Amino acid sequence: MNFLIIGGDAAGMSAASRAKRNQPDLNVTVLEKTTDVSYSACGMPYNIADPDREIEDLVVRQAQVFREKQGIRLLTGHCAEKIRPADQTVSGTAADGSDFSFSYDHLLIATGASPIKPEIPGVDLPGVMVLKTLDEGRKIKAFLKAHPVRKAVIIGMGYIALEMCEALHERGIRVDMVKPRPRLLPWMEETLSGVVREELESNGVGVHDGHVIERIEQAEAGLKVACPDLTLEGELVLIAIGVTPNSRIAADAGITPGLSDAIAVNKALQTSAPNIFAAGDCADAVHVVTGEKTWIPLALRANRGGWAVADTVCGKKTELPGIVGTAVFKVFDLQVARTGLTSAEAEKAGFEPAEVMIKSRSRAHRHPNGAPIWVQMVGDRKSGRLLGAQMVGREGAAHRINAPAVALHTRMTVDQFSQSDLAYAPPFGPTWDPLLTAANQLLKKM
Amino acid sequence: MNFLIIGGDAAGMSAASRAKRNQPDLNVTVLEKTTDVSYSACGMPYNIADPDREIEDLVVRQAQVFREKQGIRLLTGHCAEKIRPADQTVSGTAADGSDFSFSYDHLLIATGASPIKPEIPGVDLPGVMVLKTLDEGRKIKAFLKAHPVRKAVIIGMGYIALEMCEALHERGIRVDMVKPRPRLLPWMEETLSGVVREELESNGVGVHDGHVIERIEQAEAGLKVACPDLTLEGELVLIAIGVTPNSRIAADAGITPGLSDAIAVNKALQTSAPNIFAAGDCADAVHVVTGEKTWIPLALRANRGGWAVADTVCGKKTELPGIVGTAVFKVFDLQVARTGLTSAEAEKAGFEPAEVMIKSRSRAHRHPNGAPIWVQMVGDRKSGRLLGAQMVGREGAAHRINAPAVALHTRMTVDQFSQSDLAYAPPFGPTWDPLLTAANQLLKKM
Repeated sequence: MNFLIIGGDAAGMSAASRAKRNQPDLNVTVLEKTTDVSYSACGMPYNIADPDREIEDLVVRQAQVFREKQGIRLLTGHCAEKIRPADQTVSGTAADGSDFSFSYDHLLIATGASPIKPEIPGVDLPGVMVLKTLDEGRKIKAFLKAHPVRKAVIIGMGYIALEMCEALHERGIRVDMVKPRPRLLPWMEETLSGVVREELESNGVGVHDGHVIERIEQAEAGLKVACPDLTLEGELVLIAIGVTPNSRIAADAGITPGLSDAIAVNKALQTSAPNIFAAGDCADAVHVVTGEKTWIPLALRANRGGWAVADTVCGKKTELPGIVGTAVFKVFDLQVARTGLTSAEAEKAGFEPAEVMIKSRSRAHRHPNGAPIWVQMVGDRKSGRLLGAQMVGREGAAHRINAPAVALHTRMTVDQFSQSDLAYAPPFGPTWDPLLTAANQLLKKM
Repeated sequence: MNFLIIGGDAAGMSAASRAKRNQPDLNVTVLEKTTDVSYSACGMPYNIADPDREIEDLVVRQAQVFREKQGIRLLTGHCAEKIRPADQTVSGTAADGSDFSFSYDHLLIATGASPIKPEIPGVDLPGVMVLKTLDEGRKIKAFLKAHPVRKAVIIGMGYIALEMCEALHERGIRVDMVKPRPRLLPWMEETLSGVVREELESNGVGVHDGHVIERIEQAEAGLKVACPDLTLEGELVLIAIGVTPNSRIAADAGITPGLSDAIAVNKALQTSAPNIFAAGDCADAVHVVTGEKTWIPLALRANRGGWAVADTVCGKKTELPGIVGTAVFKVFDLQVARTGLTSAEAEKAGFEPAEVMIKSRSRAHRHPNGAPIWVQMVGDRKSGRLLGAQMVGREGAAHRINAPAVALHTRMTVDQFSQSDLAYAPPFGPTWDPLLTAANQLLKKM
């Protein structure tokens, strides 16, 4: 039986490895258009921060390990171009210019996502970069090595933009961030996003939200990002305004599209076409809180999706319950975390949200070296359900978010959550954990 | 209406404050035998560690605030001695030698727990200390100030013993710990307790488990703790072998006792006697995982119990769902956390436990400054339910434990927990959170 996989990143290689472990005699073929497979994409900003680390350091498993130790037919430099569901074949072009065509019994589309480039003049100038693939990371590192970069401009203010901001700052580069929409992290409760802004600004980062970018152009000593009332200069411009799913090949094959141009899949990651699955950043998912489709391209879901498809292909049909939208990132010394819905998202999904924001401490009363910790929490007035939480703090925010995340999976009410037996010791929090204080306060509003 | 409370610590003062907030015209009287109320008992080891901090620093709210701002009749130096349920009165002796008697409509027994002293010669020698009340903390600090203590012996190896070990070590005191039973932290999976032992020993702490203590005696330069095959010397001996509930006053009044000599209460914290409640370390609780009674004296439950009783007394009957046995503590640079049942406890409770122990990392692949993290997890083969987890690590263990804690409250299966959408970013963990890796491995054994 032939299990064919398009894409050799998180979802694709997870599926390939697991399928071979499940069923060693299965023919597993992976078509990867680049030369890189199985690397920690999320680790790139941290790697870029350190001039002494090689980008290749992020490779988790070498291609020959997949080939020789695991028996996977891993074909790099193979760009899949066309799926023919009627014939069960995939054709494309290899790096040497030759054409290829493979037939499959089961196909997994794991083509990932690509950075969005704004339609403005200058986006293709030298020194204008994006970051999604290892090769893009490689180019940024090479550029930083070859050029004396003192200033950089980042277009966008999402996770990658913020992580790259810190990475460049660590290399002694002064960073300006700019985006058209007003408000940094618009999904965040305003007090919390204010804390993040302050952290950026106190580290010398220019935060310019609400500036439409008109063009990028060559300047005397590098590049210029021009807005109607603002011009930012730097030797490097990073575009990080988000990603879009690589779903064209699926759409061309007549496969039903899903949310945000992702490929629509059911809980078993099956697309509308027989024997064709999709997983990772190119596929949509069910949001457990709303019960509706969502598209949140993150690493854990990609790995999990790969495993689930491999199990199903090997005869053990596996369904994923869905995601709750948990995410965490670091902004200098701050941990920023969220799970579930914002108040606005809750309203849009038909809930009657009540919302609370509290400020607590990361350690007990008078315990040395404590820091403030902010928690926002959303509940539904009708059902009493917990709908979401956001946290910001210098310590104790990143892992704490997992408690409400689990609560969302099990549809806990705010009342039930407020009674949960969370850990307490003075070095790790107040007796009433900040999450419990938030839940207690939220109850009063519901 | 008279609401009378015996004990002015966590449960008692929480109840008093909340009752007054709920219903300002309620007569709230608190009988506290010591002179201290409302202090952070759990903070004492950390305060003792620092010679420059005053122990009074741990007082959260001064007595006069309760009296003047909150209108609570707070009587310190009042030792309650007898409850007469038939008359609805409590009598006792005040510090000035006078007798008192108060009648109540509702009574809360919040008498806490006391340190257990072993029945061996020498436990009352000067320099032999226990730690539970603020006054005991005060005495330890005064002793350390007055005497040049270079070595100390701690009898016991539980939370308080370990926290005090670190506190004394921070003050430059060499510490030996000793206890009769073999194994440090016997409830812990052996690999994990081995990590804790190594942390203690690498900090120069002597860990002497399996030594029966015969007596404490005066030595030339301090005290000697004598075991059949071991003699430990120190200027200070701390006894920290556990606590026992202060339930005598309840038993004498004919109130039904519960587990471990605690006072038996229902979910509304009601004892067997009409209008008499018990909360805090003197009362038992329901363990959500087993559905059986348990006695785990910890601060959060005490505060929560105080609130619940106050709400019930004020006409809003409130029941607590129970605890899942979550606890966390710090041992030098280690975070040690647990929730739910151990494998042995699970077996005793009638489950068919499967157990797994995994070692993972606190940060992503190749992310700088990561540290090992160990997770033990227990599930039930029959029902598939998650039953408990333990974690040890230099970072990321303390707050992570809250995710399985919430899962236990909602009776999640290991399979469901393994599918939860936990946060991921390279500075905070691997893509597969250590908890998910543990759950995935545990599933294979179930």
